Amino acid sequence: MCGFDRRSMHACMHRLELMGNRIAFKRVTNNFLDALFPLIFFLFYPAQIKAMDLECASQETVKQGLLARGWPPIKGFSKHVKTKVLEFFSHLIKLGQDDPRRVVHSLKAGLALSLVSLFYYYQPLYKSFGVSAMWAVITVVVVFEFSVGATLGKGVNRGLATLLAGGLAVGAHQLANLSGRIGEPIVLGFFVFLQAAVSTFVRFCPQIKARYDYGLLIFILTFSLISISGFRDDEVLELVHKRLLTVLIGGSTCVIISVLLFPVWAGQDLHNLIASNMEKLGIFLEGFGDEFFKMPEDGESKEDRPFLQGYKSVLDSKTNEDALANFARWEPRHGRFQFRHPWKHYLKIGALTRKCAFRIESLNEHLYADIQAKRGIRSKIQETCTTMSMESGKALKELSMAIKTMVKPFAADIHIENSKSSVKNLDTLLKSGLWDDETDLLEVVPVATVASLLIDVVTCTDEIAESVNELATMLKFEVVEPTGSPEKPETGQPKIGIS
Amino acid sequence: MCGFDRRSMHACMHRLELMGNRIAFKRVTNNFLDALFPLIFFLFYPAQIKAMDLECASQETVKQGLLARGWPPIKGFSKHVKTKVLEFFSHLIKLGQDDPRRVVHSLKAGLALSLVSLFYYYQPLYKSFGVSAMWAVITVVVVFEFSVGATLGKGVNRGLATLLAGGLAVGAHQLANLSGRIGEPIVLGFFVFLQAAVSTFVRFCPQIKARYDYGLLIFILTFSLISISGFRDDEVLELVHKRLLTVLIGGSTCVIISVLLFPVWAGQDLHNLIASNMEKLGIFLEGFGDEFFKMPEDGESKEDRPFLQGYKSVLDSKTNEDALANFARWEPRHGRFQFRHPWKHYLKIGALTRKCAFRIESLNEHLYADIQAKRGIRSKIQETCTTMSMESGKALKELSMAIKTMVKPFAADIHIENSKSSVKNLDTLLKSGLWDDETDLLEVVPVATVASLLIDVVTCTDEIAESVNELATMLKFEVVEPTGSPEKPETGQPKIGIS
Repeated sequence: MCGFDRRSMHACMHRLELMGNRIAFKRVTNNFLDALFPLIFFLFYPAQIKAMDLECASQETVKQGLLARGWPPIKGFSKHVKTKVLEFFSHLIKLGQDDPRRVVHSLKAGLALSLVSLFYYYQPLYKSFGVSAMWAVITVVVVFEFSVGATLGKGVNRGLATLLAGGLAVGAHQLANLSGRIGEPIVLGFFVFLQAAVSTFVRFCPQIKARYDYGLLIFILTFSLISISGFRDDEVLELVHKRLLTVLIGGSTCVIISVLLFPVWAGQDLHNLIASNMEKLGIFLEGFGDEFFKMPEDGESKEDRPFLQGYKSVLDSKTNEDALANFARWEPRHGRFQFRHPWKHYLKIGALTRKCAFRIESLNEHLYADIQAKRGIRSKIQETCTTMSMESGKALKELSMAIKTMVKPFAADIHIENSKSSVKNLDTLLKSGLWDDETDLLEVVPVATVASLLIDVVTCTDEIAESVNELATMLKFEVVEPTGSPEKPETGQPKIGIS
Repeated sequence: MCGFDRRSMHACMHRLELMGNRIAFKRVTNNFLDALFPLIFFLFYPAQIKAMDLECASQETVKQGLLARGWPPIKGFSKHVKTKVLEFFSHLIKLGQDDPRRVVHSLKAGLALSLVSLFYYYQPLYKSFGVSAMWAVITVVVVFEFSVGATLGKGVNRGLATLLAGGLAVGAHQLANLSGRIGEPIVLGFFVFLQAAVSTFVRFCPQIKARYDYGLLIFILTFSLISISGFRDDEVLELVHKRLLTVLIGGSTCVIISVLLFPVWAGQDLHNLIASNMEKLGIFLEGFGDEFFKMPEDGESKEDRPFLQGYKSVLDSKTNEDALANFARWEPRHGRFQFRHPWKHYLKIGALTRKCAFRIESLNEHLYADIQAKRGIRSKIQETCTTMSMESGKALKELSMAIKTMVKPFAADIHIENSKSSVKNLDTLLKSGLWDDETDLLEVVPVATVASLLIDVVTCTDEIAESVNELATMLKFEVVEPTGSPEKPETGQPKIGIS
């Protein structure tokens, strides 16, 4: 196709480059379609057709006429569209099935918006607010969030910021009024510039950003709007009054609906998240011992086990935990949670759990490392290591259950003592010179590493248990004596006094 | 103070409880003051005084008169206020010094807002837009973000969503008009409910949330506002037109100012973040070998070393990287970055770097473990381990520098080969039976673990290098032959062919 003289080579390269561009264009278009397909379907249809058209042209002969090539791309495209639309809808259905509260939240948002739109439809209400009722609608759209805490936080931020900014804007308006018709816009402009710059800068402060970012945004917005409007409209006080009232109406509609109709509490979510993260680590540890020491000779791959991958989500859970704790701090007393519930302590437990997950990530790395060679070495410490892993796992699951049910974690303490005594057993085993002189040190290293990482995990688990016990004391967890207390494991090694 | 009869004990407990409440109240008030102090100073002043007053009253005798106790708390409080205000300002100054772009951004935000407020001040402009100019102000406040990418993303989202929602709202208005004066609000209400519920649900979709969340919010807002307003105002088309125009004016003001005046590119920030994260790991590894094998007999604590803690921030960098990559995708060509720069590949490198950081976290755990006992064992593999750590560290620093300067990482390859050959040396060392029979296996375990984790780190570094090399090929990094190529280390062990 491409000759070897310089000119045709250039032409050929140019053609290849164009083809590359087209493919890249198609990829970008497809990504975009993936995301917003149903909404922008009609907008982007012609571009997509053209892109596919061009691509086909470059793949087939260039000489074919437009008419002759008309059908196949359109047919192919309509099939592509069908698949995409179906994929998108099945994805949406899965989202709803995963957490039905999402469907409920969407209906609640629709209801809240319909309620405040009554200010427009119902004559007596419209009479008193007029177009200012718009602010109630805007407030509902931006304030209504998934959890009660987020909604309350935004509502309070918006309300307080509107009040404060309104007051200051009235003051700025009065001051500007004193400086005459020419001086007024200059003074107003100066105030707007100053407060926007200062407030924008204060938003960089991490402590303020975490809780009051939205409030500062609304402060800038309201101050600017009211002080600027004051230049054209002298009834600034009435403006502030109406705006504040509509914001309060919109905000309280959101809060009331979010609290009364199937409330979603961020605090409860944080509580469950911390517990389920701990459980995920527990599931990994319970399975790890068996997986590590089992020979894969029965033809199955260890990579199939989904329970060994569950802990991965814990590694990146910090942002989610921080956000939930921030929302939870706004929430009033609900269920078993007080207004000043120790959310910060949950974050502490979460951080310890994450620390444990980092150790487990290192452990997981060694799960698939060259297994066959070290069979002899492994078998010697298999029982102790399996017990360490299993008991830590059980302890974590018990702690998770204790948090979930808010019952004192008695059973966990026993598992932790068991895992600690396994650590001691391991020490004895190593000291007792169980290893013969022919033991290849090269083979000892990987097994020693796993044992050492398991010791770290036991330490982490102990820290987590201590922290959960602190929480149990703080929140006065229920004391339920365990019915069938878990027995101590039979390790076959001499028991050493538990420290 | 408290007698032992039942009644006075109850009274005493009640008083203690009250005191606890007051202290808790004061702590909450103080936290709040910490955050928003300058703004809410005047609002909260009386409450604070009262709280301090009450507390003092409970600590001193209860009989003292109000007047007699007037001074000390006020004096103490004014001192407290002074400290808090000073702390807050020094914190703000530090924020500005840490990243002066924050100050510039704040001034830019002020400028953008002042510019759009001209629509109110300047008569000819006000004539054509009237109060609709308000939308330009609102757009500037909510769209203007720190980086160009974030501003562009929000601007495009807002513009497209306003256009789309405006069009659909006009259609909904026409349909509702057909159903008569009584049917109209019902049809409109139904449409508003339906689109709010559907759009709110679609916002849960993670891919859409990442890029188009703001667009969907504005879609709900605009559709609701325009279709509802249509009930009272028949000139819906003009409403849509004015709203779209003012949003475009506000949005383009933001984009122009953010691109032309000291632009902050999210892409550049992501590029720097990835490079600096790698550098932090490199700094740790360069120092680790010496720190681990050094005896702390010279009386200094290892915990003082800040360079050993720098890597911690890498553990939680995922959210930040994802956000920057999302913003960067909106940015046009700038400096050395194309419009379709492979930002996803940066995220891949970031994930590998984080994986390496998890290993380093495990290593760090062993840095402070019982050191004295294992001096004999350590010294035997000290040189090899130090080389492994040092060479991986150097490789990471070279890779970081290669990304920063966009030059092919030749030197890194040499360091990686060096670290790999150290791994082989370690294997030889262990095989060669260097260990005598008296070696206590209990003492081998911690050193073996560190060696094993270092081998993992070498593997991770190799993966990172591979990924950076892919990026270098993708982006055609500059080829600069290293001037003084780093020499191979003298390990004192037999060299084995580099695989």
